[in-house]
Amino acid sequence: MTGEENAQRMEKIVSLCKRRGFIFQSSEVYGGLNGVWDYGPLGVELKNNLKQYWWQVTVRERDDVVGLDGAILTHPAVLKASGHVDTFTDPMVDCRTCKTRLRADQLAEKKGIKQCPNCGGKDLTEARPFNLMFQTQMGASADPASIAYLRPETAQSIFVQFKNVLDVSRKKLPFGIAQIGKAFRNEINPRNFTFRSREFEQMELEYFCRPEQGMDLLAYWLKERIKFYEEIGISRKRLHILDVPEKERAFYSKGTFDIEYEFPFGRQELEGVAYRTDFDLQQHIKASGKALDYFDEETKERFVPHVVEPSAGVDRTVLALICDAYDEDSAPDEKGKMETRIVMRFHPRMAPVKCAIFPLLRNKEPLVAKAREVQALLRPHMNVFYDEGGAIGRRYRRQDEIGTPFGITIDFETLGEKGQELRDTVTLRDRDSMKQERVAIKDLPQLVSSKIR
Amino acid sequence: MTGEENAQRMEKIVSLCKRRGFIFQSSEVYGGLNGVWDYGPLGVELKNNLKQYWWQVTVRERDDVVGLDGAILTHPAVLKASGHVDTFTDPMVDCRTCKTRLRADQLAEKKGIKQCPNCGGKDLTEARPFNLMFQTQMGASADPASIAYLRPETAQSIFVQFKNVLDVSRKKLPFGIAQIGKAFRNEINPRNFTFRSREFEQMELEYFCRPEQGMDLLAYWLKERIKFYEEIGISRKRLHILDVPEKERAFYSKGTFDIEYEFPFGRQELEGVAYRTDFDLQQHIKASGKALDYFDEETKERFVPHVVEPSAGVDRTVLALICDAYDEDSAPDEKGKMETRIVMRFHPRMAPVKCAIFPLLRNKEPLVAKAREVQALLRPHMNVFYDEGGAIGRRYRRQDEIGTPFGITIDFETLGEKGQELRDTVTLRDRDSMKQERVAIKDLPQLVSSKIR
Repeated sequence: MTGEENAQRMEKIVSLCKRRGFIFQSSEVYGGLNGVWDYGPLGVELKNNLKQYWWQVTVRERDDVVGLDGAILTHPAVLKASGHVDTFTDPMVDCRTCKTRLRADQLAEKKGIKQCPNCGGKDLTEARPFNLMFQTQMGASADPASIAYLRPETAQSIFVQFKNVLDVSRKKLPFGIAQIGKAFRNEINPRNFTFRSREFEQMELEYFCRPEQGMDLLAYWLKERIKFYEEIGISRKRLHILDVPEKERAFYSKGTFDIEYEFPFGRQELEGVAYRTDFDLQQHIKASGKALDYFDEETKERFVPHVVEPSAGVDRTVLALICDAYDEDSAPDEKGKMETRIVMRFHPRMAPVKCAIFPLLRNKEPLVAKAREVQALLRPHMNVFYDEGGAIGRRYRRQDEIGTPFGITIDFETLGEKGQELRDTVTLRDRDSMKQERVAIKDLPQLVSSKIR
Repeated sequence: MTGEENAQRMEKIVSLCKRRGFIFQSSEVYGGLNGVWDYGPLGVELKNNLKQYWWQVTVRERDDVVGLDGAILTHPAVLKASGHVDTFTDPMVDCRTCKTRLRADQLAEKKGIKQCPNCGGKDLTEARPFNLMFQTQMGASADPASIAYLRPETAQSIFVQFKNVLDVSRKKLPFGIAQIGKAFRNEINPRNFTFRSREFEQMELEYFCRPEQGMDLLAYWLKERIKFYEEIGISRKRLHILDVPEKERAFYSKGTFDIEYEFPFGRQELEGVAYRTDFDLQQHIKASGKALDYFDEETKERFVPHVVEPSAGVDRTVLALICDAYDEDSAPDEKGKMETRIVMRFHPRMAPVKCAIFPLLRNKEPLVAKAREVQALLRPHMNVFYDEGGAIGRRYRRQDEIGTPFGITIDFETLGEKGQELRDTVTLRDRDSMKQERVAIKDLPQLVSSKIR
């Protein structure tokens, strides 16, 4: 696709997100808050499906990982030790002509001369470091001792609770601590829809191990994580693995892979899988004076574990799911004329609504009653949506546009009005092939459940 | 129970929460952050079970409620309109003797003279309002226009997105918008463990209706919410309903009920069910100039809906679950001697671990292999825990202490070594009665699943 086609595609995606209630600009009625987003009725279901599946495969299905849910408000000592207070900065430049503040790496350049990309001005200040953490005051007094930060990553909550979790969980190395939660970065130029936001959610695993296991586990987790993206329905061909060169890695990392996705706005990072060595724990040991180490009962050694960190962005992955799912094809309208159909090809596991239930006609009470029965039958097992409004083709189309994988229609055959053979059967329509099959109502829970797990 | 007994009980609960990994002090290795808590491996599972069950019954099982997930960072105009910027304050008094800052309503009083409860001093300042919102700076500049707040309640996200959600969801009145998310209040004196925290999570429903439906729906939602607490296993006898008198209600509320729980530290609010009239929407209409109203297609009227709000605290409900579950009884130790048993009597629906799986002996490979098979069989359906360490009685006791409702032991009978009759059966132990029954492995998924839903 050309750049223009990609831009058009992205515009359609953003428009659908608002029109169908996936994502809204935050505080929109007051002009919006730049870089901050709200998830609408479908967005919150999609995001929850993603988070719950990650928790399922990362924590619940493994004996070697336990969960944690740390606070957002963070003691400054934690972020001093981790290096964030001193070095979590972007170099910033001010344009003296138009007064815009710019990230130094986003300046334009013409014949080797730096320019403001906004006004073209060349009167720029020197680059100065600008800390990306949000800070606030805690308690009633306003002295510097009362500063707290909104955490810039969930990882540090895990490192500072490492010893508590080790003590209560009785785990042996290698084992991991997983967390899903919000983090905040005061991005100077939030952009690309929800991709670079100031408030975002992370799904992070810190997997602790013996030093000699680090490189192997880095390779292991990279594979596991790629598998995860395939399992949620992201096309493998749009995923890329970047082996981050040493000079671009954090100085303490012995290896980092970025898992990137081809968004319409370019190839961008979804997740970093980093071998962080024992850097973080050592920093907190130094700063807190606490023994954040591990005692090996078999070898009688005491040492500080190393850590491999697969760190994924929830919002970025939701956006990748949406971009990957967006498709247009052709389908016949009510009169058989072919028209463009927008269809979100979500993996059934991720789809916000799993099954839509339609009585053929809304003014025919037995159809409606039967449809409500089917809804009650399926509801304990999955998120279902009941819709009786409008022509059946229009109702299918509305569900295609939000990616509902299955549509169930209750018609006169269901009521036994066309003979007993088809009584208590319904049509089950597949979103992608648009094919319909006749299925007994009693088989629906098992049949549909098996396709959405 | 006497005050002292209650204090002792609370001490035991707090101690168990740390010892077994329900709740840790946040940033503990750096001396802790006052009023901020982290949830450990069991705490996060318990909290997720609560949130998911609330979402299930409030959103997924209802046709008239949709979800939302709004941002924490909030545009100041939102909170100016809602009244929080101007009036969300506590009156504060400073003690000039010991320099403590106190909430005016927490002063001691002796013979009508106000005293500092800390030092007994009587030299106190006048009460001054202190805003409870956390504030931060967004963007690179430090001017007042860049102030953003951490939301003090999730409700306002819903009101400002009311029109967007109405447009995309095509709902008719009455209908609700539900949200689970974090909110922040700079409490001067955080206390009672996690009960009054600075960072907390809410489960809120804003249920919009016609003005004449408000009082009936207030009564309806109060009943629904009491039912909810019973369904998650909170004893009805420790729940109380407070009909908040008019002079203590917000001035715009036509009726408010507090649902209170008898904590060991006193009777305290878990949830407020408030009829807020159209106050919030009207405020945002005035401040934003946007038409946040509703058009009734049948009556052709256009009006601003009223709202009934059941607003529950996640952390408070988790704490109530823990306090309600904590119990001590007697059980025989390895030698048959009776000893005190700590048992968390969580409702199986809420219990962090549903089922523990024990091979009788860890050094007998066929027992271990069979136990792993049972674990794999149950894992897709529930959170299970495998434990092979120590005497079986000790293992039961460890699970009782975290409230695991079911224990499965794989023994020599399971392997068919005591005859074919009991081959492929296990003992299923009930946490509360400590009774054991013999169950076929193949029946376990259905049997245990039916008890935890």
